Amino acid sequence: MNIIVMKFGGTSVGSTERIQEVAKRVEEKVKAGYKCVVVLSAMGKTTDHLVNLVKELNHQPSPRELDMLLTTGEQISIALLSVALHKLDLEARSFTGWQAGIVTDEVHGKAAVHQVKTEKLFDSLEKGEVAVVAGFQGVTDAGEITTLGRGGSDTTAVTLAAALDAEYCEIYTDVTGVYTADPRFIDQAQKIDEISYEEMLELARLGAGVLHPRSVECALTHKVKLVVRSSFEREPGTWIKEKDEMEETLQVRGIAHDMDVARVKLLGLPNQSDILAKLFTTLADAHINVDIIVQSEHQSDQISVAFSISEAEGQAVQKVLREKQSVLGFQEMLFEGGLAKVSAVGVGMMTRPGVAANMFACLSEANIPVKMVSTSEIKLSCVIDRDKAIEAANSLHRYFGLGADSKVSI
Amino acid sequence: MNIIVMKFGGTSVGSTERIQEVAKRVEEKVKAGYKCVVVLSAMGKTTDHLVNLVKELNHQPSPRELDMLLTTGEQISIALLSVALHKLDLEARSFTGWQAGIVTDEVHGKAAVHQVKTEKLFDSLEKGEVAVVAGFQGVTDAGEITTLGRGGSDTTAVTLAAALDAEYCEIYTDVTGVYTADPRFIDQAQKIDEISYEEMLELARLGAGVLHPRSVECALTHKVKLVVRSSFEREPGTWIKEKDEMEETLQVRGIAHDMDVARVKLLGLPNQSDILAKLFTTLADAHINVDIIVQSEHQSDQISVAFSISEAEGQAVQKVLREKQSVLGFQEMLFEGGLAKVSAVGVGMMTRPGVAANMFACLSEANIPVKMVSTSEIKLSCVIDRDKAIEAANSLHRYFGLGADSKVSI
Repeated sequence: MNIIVMKFGGTSVGSTERIQEVAKRVEEKVKAGYKCVVVLSAMGKTTDHLVNLVKELNHQPSPRELDMLLTTGEQISIALLSVALHKLDLEARSFTGWQAGIVTDEVHGKAAVHQVKTEKLFDSLEKGEVAVVAGFQGVTDAGEITTLGRGGSDTTAVTLAAALDAEYCEIYTDVTGVYTADPRFIDQAQKIDEISYEEMLELARLGAGVLHPRSVECALTHKVKLVVRSSFEREPGTWIKEKDEMEETLQVRGIAHDMDVARVKLLGLPNQSDILAKLFTTLADAHINVDIIVQSEHQSDQISVAFSISEAEGQAVQKVLREKQSVLGFQEMLFEGGLAKVSAVGVGMMTRPGVAANMFACLSEANIPVKMVSTSEIKLSCVIDRDKAIEAANSLHRYFGLGADSKVSI
Repeated sequence: MNIIVMKFGGTSVGSTERIQEVAKRVEEKVKAGYKCVVVLSAMGKTTDHLVNLVKELNHQPSPRELDMLLTTGEQISIALLSVALHKLDLEARSFTGWQAGIVTDEVHGKAAVHQVKTEKLFDSLEKGEVAVVAGFQGVTDAGEITTLGRGGSDTTAVTLAAALDAEYCEIYTDVTGVYTADPRFIDQAQKIDEISYEEMLELARLGAGVLHPRSVECALTHKVKLVVRSSFEREPGTWIKEKDEMEETLQVRGIAHDMDVARVKLLGLPNQSDILAKLFTTLADAHINVDIIVQSEHQSDQISVAFSISEAEGQAVQKVLREKQSVLGFQEMLFEGGLAKVSAVGVGMMTRPGVAANMFACLSEANIPVKMVSTSEIKLSCVIDRDKAIEAANSLHRYFGLGADSKVSI
């Protein structure tokens, strides 16, 4: 079967008119001979509405009950799209996460998919039905309803594409594709026609916002061809695929920025072999995600460690560390909010050594001090003051020649 | 375990404030030592909102997708009540229909419960949790989501009470109990303290509206003690139980009226042994509910039949019968709308022969002509002109001494 997976996000199904548009998009694919699996998010503001309701009752709703509540949003979407498809004389059947066989672990609010029992979906596709699946949700072996966390519907789509061996997976969204930088802030940002999984992964992690990193990881692991395109306009979008299938390899593919960064510094930690393990296990146990980590040795018996986090988690981090100060044995904790991170991403960086130098030169020319640095094979990130972030991203975008006037890197 | 089932309808959970009130009601029962199963309907207007949405897309939504859509309403309620109970430091866990083990047949929109797999609910109660169950919904053996149709949450509550061997089942609603007549129309209507299943069943079928007939049937079958009480006020309500547990047996327990009645008369039907079977099979196949049936023989080879229906179904009935006129072989069809039905209900009627005579005498004194009559062991119904119905119900209420000044039947 030539199966494709089509995923539509919240704005794409935000009203009954939009749902009718989605139905027409699906109809085109069915008429073109594809077996379609459609993955949907909740309608526009449904999730926010439900979250507001629950907060009126309990500011710390249990993750299990929150999942029970929020999964209704996608269930509404799938029923509505199914009847809209029926109206177009298409056979269609909706599936909740548990009906679609999406089995997860027990971590409510950010569950990981363990297994997809594809039998019912294959049955449905073989009968000639469009299978309409609720994104973002799954079920544990014990029959508990779970959600996959932020960007979960993308993950559902890619996971299903892998499990069903789909030709490709379309992610319909409210933008026309992946850009060299966030076009809301960077004037010269250009749409990218093709990008490798690895580059997309770095851009996704860095807050490009079009695709959730987990879904890109999943696509990379299972070699699912992805395309990101607009559900509002008919443009080709951006294809995300393997490097060796791509036509050109730029040194820097795009510039990302993330405005929600804070830094924590711990001074005077004992220089013990297990101290970093202790520290970051403590933070992991408190479900705090750490991004960049910098360690430095001051004296032979003491080290200091700095790490960046989401500023939203600042209070939680400080609370946990203060409680554990005697166990960890640090002397002082410094917290700095109001930071941001700008990053240059590109698979071409591996083979060309000058990118870091160029990046620092660019920021230095713009008089923007760098507070932390992190490098990977295809990414270079600098933590800077938040109020300089947009200026920095624009400067880097120009510096690496990503604007409309030049598609070749310097 | 001393288990009770508490069911709250749509207005009782119509807002987060109301849900907090429900949580307090449940807390009282928990503190009194009961193991509580709480069954909820969808919040106030949620179901109407969802129905409006689906109608924008498809005026004839498939029953399966409608069930998929509507069951989200109760799922929202149960999650919200659970977090409200957590806020009161009570252990609580929500259950969708399929999680609660409510297994039904495959008739979407009005499924019948086949089985309750009580294991998970018992587990939850044994752990000391309040089990909060979505009313109105179940699941087929094949994993399809179904709804139990109108009044379905009452049926869920009674079914669970039976399956869990609960001490009793409380139906919380927006009225303080069952009345001798509809208090919106009958000035002297009195709340009834106790009523038998059989009487309640007749009152429920006759449109008293407080409880759905199916739930009363289910309570009767399984001998589940029911109490109907207000979720807004703290009054004892009405207990529904077995006749022999009741303190007094009145001749007439209450007066019901149903304003939506029409009559169809078929003249000149051939006097064949299978003619009634043919006629009412034809109507049943068209999903038309017939209430009172009166047959009369005119000549040896011809009969006439009159039957009452809901006036809303008048057009459909006439269409079906006209199409089948040659098959059924009647000569003329007469339709009369604008009718109503008033009924006197009471288990005491069985043993006291004068009730019918009293009823006709009362209507005759009030100059109200009787168009059709139907009797059962505990009920006597008359079809009359709709514009006389309230007057008739008031007269009968007085005549049988159901008002405040007299609780003893004449």
